[in-house]
Amino acid sequence: MNGVMHTLDVHSAPPSSILALDHIRGVLQRLEDTIVFQLIERAQFARNPRCYLPGAFAELKQRENWSGSWIQWFLKETETTHAKLRRFEAPDEYPFTSPELLPKPVLEPVTYPKLLWPHKVNVNDKILQFYIDDIVPTITRNLGEDGDDGHYGSSAIRDCEVLSAMSRRIHFGMFVAESKFRSEPASFIPHIRSRNRDELANLITKPAVEAALLVRLGKKAEVYGQDMNRPGATDEEREKERKIEVEAVVRIYKNFVIPLTRDVEVDYLLTRLDGVSDDEVKTMLETNRYPETD
Amino acid sequence: MNGVMHTLDVHSAPPSSILALDHIRGVLQRLEDTIVFQLIERAQFARNPRCYLPGAFAELKQRENWSGSWIQWFLKETETTHAKLRRFEAPDEYPFTSPELLPKPVLEPVTYPKLLWPHKVNVNDKILQFYIDDIVPTITRNLGEDGDDGHYGSSAIRDCEVLSAMSRRIHFGMFVAESKFRSEPASFIPHIRSRNRDELANLITKPAVEAALLVRLGKKAEVYGQDMNRPGATDEEREKERKIEVEAVVRIYKNFVIPLTRDVEVDYLLTRLDGVSDDEVKTMLETNRYPETD
Repeated sequence: MNGVMHTLDVHSAPPSSILALDHIRGVLQRLEDTIVFQLIERAQFARNPRCYLPGAFAELKQRENWSGSWIQWFLKETETTHAKLRRFEAPDEYPFTSPELLPKPVLEPVTYPKLLWPHKVNVNDKILQFYIDDIVPTITRNLGEDGDDGHYGSSAIRDCEVLSAMSRRIHFGMFVAESKFRSEPASFIPHIRSRNRDELANLITKPAVEAALLVRLGKKAEVYGQDMNRPGATDEEREKERKIEVEAVVRIYKNFVIPLTRDVEVDYLLTRLDGVSDDEVKTMLETNRYPETD
Repeated sequence: MNGVMHTLDVHSAPPSSILALDHIRGVLQRLEDTIVFQLIERAQFARNPRCYLPGAFAELKQRENWSGSWIQWFLKETETTHAKLRRFEAPDEYPFTSPELLPKPVLEPVTYPKLLWPHKVNVNDKILQFYIDDIVPTITRNLGEDGDDGHYGSSAIRDCEVLSAMSRRIHFGMFVAESKFRSEPASFIPHIRSRNRDELANLITKPAVEAALLVRLGKKAEVYGQDMNRPGATDEEREKERKIEVEAVVRIYKNFVIPLTRDVEVDYLLTRLDGVSDDEVKTMLETNRYPETD
């Protein structure tokens, strides 16, 4: 190990190095490991469909006045703790819970470098819906189509971990978008003005990078998801004991993480010129350069 | 995948199958994966020594009247949420926070099968101390001897995950002890009566099993801790980019997890005859059988 930063170095680096595409890609690749790990951790418990059904636990309604689902309650409780620690002041963290239900930080605020343009992007509702409807049933199928093992707390803890890693990964798209915008603003400005989502998506999409990602992700799921508890097992036995299916993980990224990241990038870009003066826009169009401030 | 249970099947199986050594070993081996995963997740952040120093955050004292450390506060907050979900009523879950600081469950109690004899074993103070003094400095050394990256919330979330998995692993020793006691009570009874810790430790220690564990664990750390983000890298480059050192993980188990599990097992056995009638003890001694009740 040589101390390469795979976390977002918001506390000490200048914006230009935080927004360097290589740095962003390093963080995103490290996040793939986390997502695969946490999916594997979730997959050891049954689907537990009750946990995702609003109102399924009468006690939560009676004692906590909570009419949502178990997982939404658990997210709210967990995010309450994290909000006190100012988690959602970081530019790469977005809560699943409505901000008005979360407390103010206990800690003094941190001054973060200005990385993103002011925006209102938060796709966590979509992430939660896809997670409940598609990801959980897929990765828990081996324990029964609608399996219930009673480990509601344990599965909720893992749900929270997966959801928070995926949310971070998907919203990280805004750093990618900001980085690409800064590197060639003149290419983006006309399509932002004409609100052309397709052209904006084309500008930020690199099919070769996505193809490489899916190959790499499949290898990670293959390696991290193998059962290493029976050294004498044959390949076939080992395959039967996999902790997670390779294809399931690849599909989650292909059908969901990547498209939703692209939506986030485009949503972000669409408001990227709000509040930028005509003069500034003109200069960026003429020079195709972003005025560096750090 | 074929649906093998690697979790503790307390909600549906009878005590005799839960306490079968094969089942317990399956759970312990699965927990190794979790511990390795979570150590890797923690190791991406710096040591952040401030988080482990009582009183280091004035705000926690002022606003939350908390004079302990950041990590103790974070454990208390997290365990408060989990206590509401009745986590600590499960026979394999023990809190780091003093029980009088934790709320009552919001949910109706679950009836667990009677697996363990009544006991007061909780070594979480020792686990936390070793974690702070030894494990965190070891696994974060690559980011600087006393590195501080400001990611206090992120590292605390991972601390909580590692600590809770290790605590579960170590306290699980009581299931092992109970299982072995039930299988040949006559061997244990004389040493329990004479309070002979060494003989009790001998009865539960299987050197071949421990040796196999350390080999298996090293392989897991090797495989799960490899950097898979640069497919073209040489073995040497890849080794430099490891997410965690194999030897560090093996040492954590060898110097700490295994000995502390043994202490837990012996502590538990020492009070295993409290409240058992002389007649019952005599019968167990004569028959060398445990009266099955399920």
